[in-house]
Amino acid sequence: MQYNYRNVTIKDGFWKKMEDLNSKVTVNAVYDRFYETGRIDAFKFDWKEGEDKQPHFFWDSDVAKWMEGAAYILSREDRPDLEEKIERLIDDIEKNQCEDGYFNIYFTVVKPEARWSCRNWHELYCAGHLMEAACAYYDVTGRDRFLRAMEKYADYIAKVFVEERSAAFTTPGHEEIELALYRMYKTTGKQKYFELCRFFLENRGAPDNTEEDILESPYYAQNHLPIREQKEAFGHSVRAVYLYSGMADLALETGDEKLKEACIALFDNITTKKMYVTGGIGSAYRGETFTVAYDLPNASAYAETCASIGLMFFAQRMIALDPENSAKYADAIELEMYNGMLSGISLDGDKFFYENPLEIYLAERHRIDMLNYTERWPITQRPKVFGCSCCPPNLVRLLSSMGNYLYSYDEKSGEVYINQFAESVYENGDVKVSVSTNYPYDSTLKVKTNVPVRVRIPAWCHGFGGKNTYTKIENGYACFDAGEFEIGFLMKPELVASSVNVVRNLGKAALRYGPVIYCAEAKDNEGGVHKLYIDSEKVEDAKVSFSEELGRSVIDCEGYYRVDEKSGKLYAPYSLKFEKTNIRMIPYHCFANRGECDMLVYLNVK
Amino acid sequence: MQYNYRNVTIKDGFWKKMEDLNSKVTVNAVYDRFYETGRIDAFKFDWKEGEDKQPHFFWDSDVAKWMEGAAYILSREDRPDLEEKIERLIDDIEKNQCEDGYFNIYFTVVKPEARWSCRNWHELYCAGHLMEAACAYYDVTGRDRFLRAMEKYADYIAKVFVEERSAAFTTPGHEEIELALYRMYKTTGKQKYFELCRFFLENRGAPDNTEEDILESPYYAQNHLPIREQKEAFGHSVRAVYLYSGMADLALETGDEKLKEACIALFDNITTKKMYVTGGIGSAYRGETFTVAYDLPNASAYAETCASIGLMFFAQRMIALDPENSAKYADAIELEMYNGMLSGISLDGDKFFYENPLEIYLAERHRIDMLNYTERWPITQRPKVFGCSCCPPNLVRLLSSMGNYLYSYDEKSGEVYINQFAESVYENGDVKVSVSTNYPYDSTLKVKTNVPVRVRIPAWCHGFGGKNTYTKIENGYACFDAGEFEIGFLMKPELVASSVNVVRNLGKAALRYGPVIYCAEAKDNEGGVHKLYIDSEKVEDAKVSFSEELGRSVIDCEGYYRVDEKSGKLYAPYSLKFEKTNIRMIPYHCFANRGECDMLVYLNVK
Repeated sequence: MQYNYRNVTIKDGFWKKMEDLNSKVTVNAVYDRFYETGRIDAFKFDWKEGEDKQPHFFWDSDVAKWMEGAAYILSREDRPDLEEKIERLIDDIEKNQCEDGYFNIYFTVVKPEARWSCRNWHELYCAGHLMEAACAYYDVTGRDRFLRAMEKYADYIAKVFVEERSAAFTTPGHEEIELALYRMYKTTGKQKYFELCRFFLENRGAPDNTEEDILESPYYAQNHLPIREQKEAFGHSVRAVYLYSGMADLALETGDEKLKEACIALFDNITTKKMYVTGGIGSAYRGETFTVAYDLPNASAYAETCASIGLMFFAQRMIALDPENSAKYADAIELEMYNGMLSGISLDGDKFFYENPLEIYLAERHRIDMLNYTERWPITQRPKVFGCSCCPPNLVRLLSSMGNYLYSYDEKSGEVYINQFAESVYENGDVKVSVSTNYPYDSTLKVKTNVPVRVRIPAWCHGFGGKNTYTKIENGYACFDAGEFEIGFLMKPELVASSVNVVRNLGKAALRYGPVIYCAEAKDNEGGVHKLYIDSEKVEDAKVSFSEELGRSVIDCEGYYRVDEKSGKLYAPYSLKFEKTNIRMIPYHCFANRGECDMLVYLNVK
Repeated sequence: MQYNYRNVTIKDGFWKKMEDLNSKVTVNAVYDRFYETGRIDAFKFDWKEGEDKQPHFFWDSDVAKWMEGAAYILSREDRPDLEEKIERLIDDIEKNQCEDGYFNIYFTVVKPEARWSCRNWHELYCAGHLMEAACAYYDVTGRDRFLRAMEKYADYIAKVFVEERSAAFTTPGHEEIELALYRMYKTTGKQKYFELCRFFLENRGAPDNTEEDILESPYYAQNHLPIREQKEAFGHSVRAVYLYSGMADLALETGDEKLKEACIALFDNITTKKMYVTGGIGSAYRGETFTVAYDLPNASAYAETCASIGLMFFAQRMIALDPENSAKYADAIELEMYNGMLSGISLDGDKFFYENPLEIYLAERHRIDMLNYTERWPITQRPKVFGCSCCPPNLVRLLSSMGNYLYSYDEKSGEVYINQFAESVYENGDVKVSVSTNYPYDSTLKVKTNVPVRVRIPAWCHGFGGKNTYTKIENGYACFDAGEFEIGFLMKPELVASSVNVVRNLGKAALRYGPVIYCAEAKDNEGGVHKLYIDSEKVEDAKVSFSEELGRSVIDCEGYYRVDEKSGKLYAPYSLKFEKTNIRMIPYHCFANRGECDMLVYLNVK
């Protein structure tokens, strides 16, 4: 099962707009912020003790992700500005790479004595991101000096970790290099990188590996068990999904059934026990972690943008590893595309959320202000810049490679899988598939193909129709022969409830319209959102319209506003007094674009 | 308006059992714990640096409250054991009181150089409790050496604070001495104690008083405004209600209308904006404080036992200060008597809650265990002993003086107010009123009286009947002439909802039966309590029965248990699937007497 963004051209519609926003605004904004904060100049390796803008130990990775994203943009656009920036960075990398192959800003200019001494200082994580960027740049441009530098670095890492075992730890404290080494292997064809990838994966949580835990917990960095025995997602959620992505790469490469089973179990555990309705994962601020099953608090939801992106990476690999269930993985990707991942970026493309809460209730946040103490809550507005800036460049590289997720090609059967829907063309040698659609505003796809195709039937849809007939339904896909056809998914506003085990959401529901989860903002709902009740029997008739302000479909639902009896009493015999009201819902990913206000995904239901 | 527990004899029933439990178990258990922890021997003033059991700066107050409670018991019972213990403590107090009148263990044996140097170290608070104990012991025994010692101390305090102004602060960091000085004034007849009481009250938050805030907040110790301008309850809840009690004493004594208005505003603010349905106040652990209006989280509820007791003190004074509204104050007292205060003590009388949560959800507490980190939650079981041990002796003195709350006597009209209901007799000179009742299990009162009486019609009741007719209803009381009569309040299980402004409780309700708030414990409800829905239309028909295990009425309600569709999915189209079930409810004050388990006051309602 192959996929490659370079086989895909997005022509128009929602994702063309996002691609353009990224290449016109986001990629520049992120670079500018990185420049202002010293991240770019840090690659000159000339920082001196006492100067400001001291390099941080994860800065290499921030810039590497940006380089990777910029490289993807170069595959479609003539962008001498980006090319120049990348080339200058590669100059610096070549110039400042150590003789032995080592490359890390922090551990060369700030703390050289500490090289490979602390497992939690992201050295291998930074290396991994640089390797991914090098592969991407080589793929797009054919120029190999960045890739050669990273090969040299990877060779050196193999020497230190495998041959000499001279580092103070065996496996990275923050996983990433595993999937990056697999990519190095696929890009260069060199088996040694696959072996190094395998080394890091097989040693994680291995019984004879007694290396230190991070945050004093074996769970935090998925150290608690060997990889094949991990069946429940634990610990830092970004680390986790990066690890699972590497595991899926290894399982695909080796055909290891036990490892594949672990990957499936982990994916299912996340998506059936530990994922928000928006696709957000990692519910706890403390450690940015997965917690226990069904622990999905809304107002304090951490749900890091990078974790949503990481889940897309993992799911994409699972499509290849477990193709007969590919629909469920593609469903998860779709959920992230329109919700948990997408809420990470502002509508104007230059502001970002690290955390993505499902509720903002400002009154509650002020509860103990009088002691000059504020509880810890997710921020309510996307800032332009923040210290730990992993998410913005992660969005840059994701939004510039969305083609990866639209199609996959089964080289055995010769079929093309249409996994995600956008006005686009897939071309791979003689194979050509074109899709015309205004998805997600409209769910009709017009398809023209010269090979048999399979169209994912989205999990949210309760039926579909079209002008031509499918040959069969299999594994969540409608199968069509070569030719032209149309298919339309039944799309109506619908209430979605979480499992009753999420007891804080009992009696509440989220509104879904196609793949998009909606929320209510106080901005649109006079009197606030917390006392609103959506009328479950009228949801089908809710009015969908296009908002010029947001550039998105908004939904007006019939509902009610709970009011008190006039007594003014704090406690009174139970009664339900409602006033009819309209409830305006907007796509969740659009929240917090018009100033700070209360927001709710899960509304009360009447 | 007079009240005095010594005019009241509780003969039988609920409060006789509590009185007996206190005098047979609690008063001894608290003394024993105080002895074991060194609090008793600390009065010998022989602790030396390096020894264990170093006296804490609030230990004087713990023991003083115990002495006060033990004194009340002596008023009814021949208890040479208690008398001996009190006398030995008074020996120590006399022996170790400083020449100048000062008495404080910590600031004599541990940190003598720090006398009157730190506002937050409870010196005046300890002094106040000692004075209250001295008054109580003098009232009961007529022996005055404790009272004389405390007069000497009070005189010294007046010298330091008023004449010399030599202390590092002007008003106490923890209020208590204000109401204690008022009591000294009433007990000794000496105006100077009233003046000192007034001094501390008038200087609190005064514009020219620039003394330090505690916890860096003017709100914490009610320093933010002069007393007459305080209209919203803020800060540490126990401090607050002790202050407001002193304010009510001052307003009563002086007839100061503006101060009376402030007292009424504060009482109304608490009971209509910041009080749990159980009577618990001070919802935040951080600073043990009142927070903003309607901020009443259930699982993290602080609701300190001492704060509930303090609210009873405040409300009792308000009955005298604002007699035409006395029913509302007596209602608040009743709420505490059967709920918020009473949950502070175990059914067997020797274990105590400092905090009184309205919900226990163990699953949520385990959410980030894997990082060896536990969020801060109220404890789930009453321990026998704890470091900050203010609540246990506060319960001892309260439960031994319950007569204070049953009756008040209006000397002007010659009427007796029956405020709370117990099998009891009120005798005051020629005035004699006797009440026969099995309240709160049954709501019928049989009354025999030789003066006109007023019977409070409880706020929870929706009607009443009886064998004799009242002459009129006035200010929430049914008025009767001298003679014999019977009155019965309509008492049915009923759902109580909080204001819609408490948005976390929307769609939920508490169960009330007469004055008693009920809760559901997982112990009685297979499958846990969080997925239960009580059937609002069947509550009236709920079955009340007596539980031998708890010695209380329990209630079986018709209800439902929410179950998921069989899909096992985390998210599915909104639907409500219920299974019928019985819901066993127990009095809230009985929770956590049978081992740790989930508990809920606010159940979902269908």
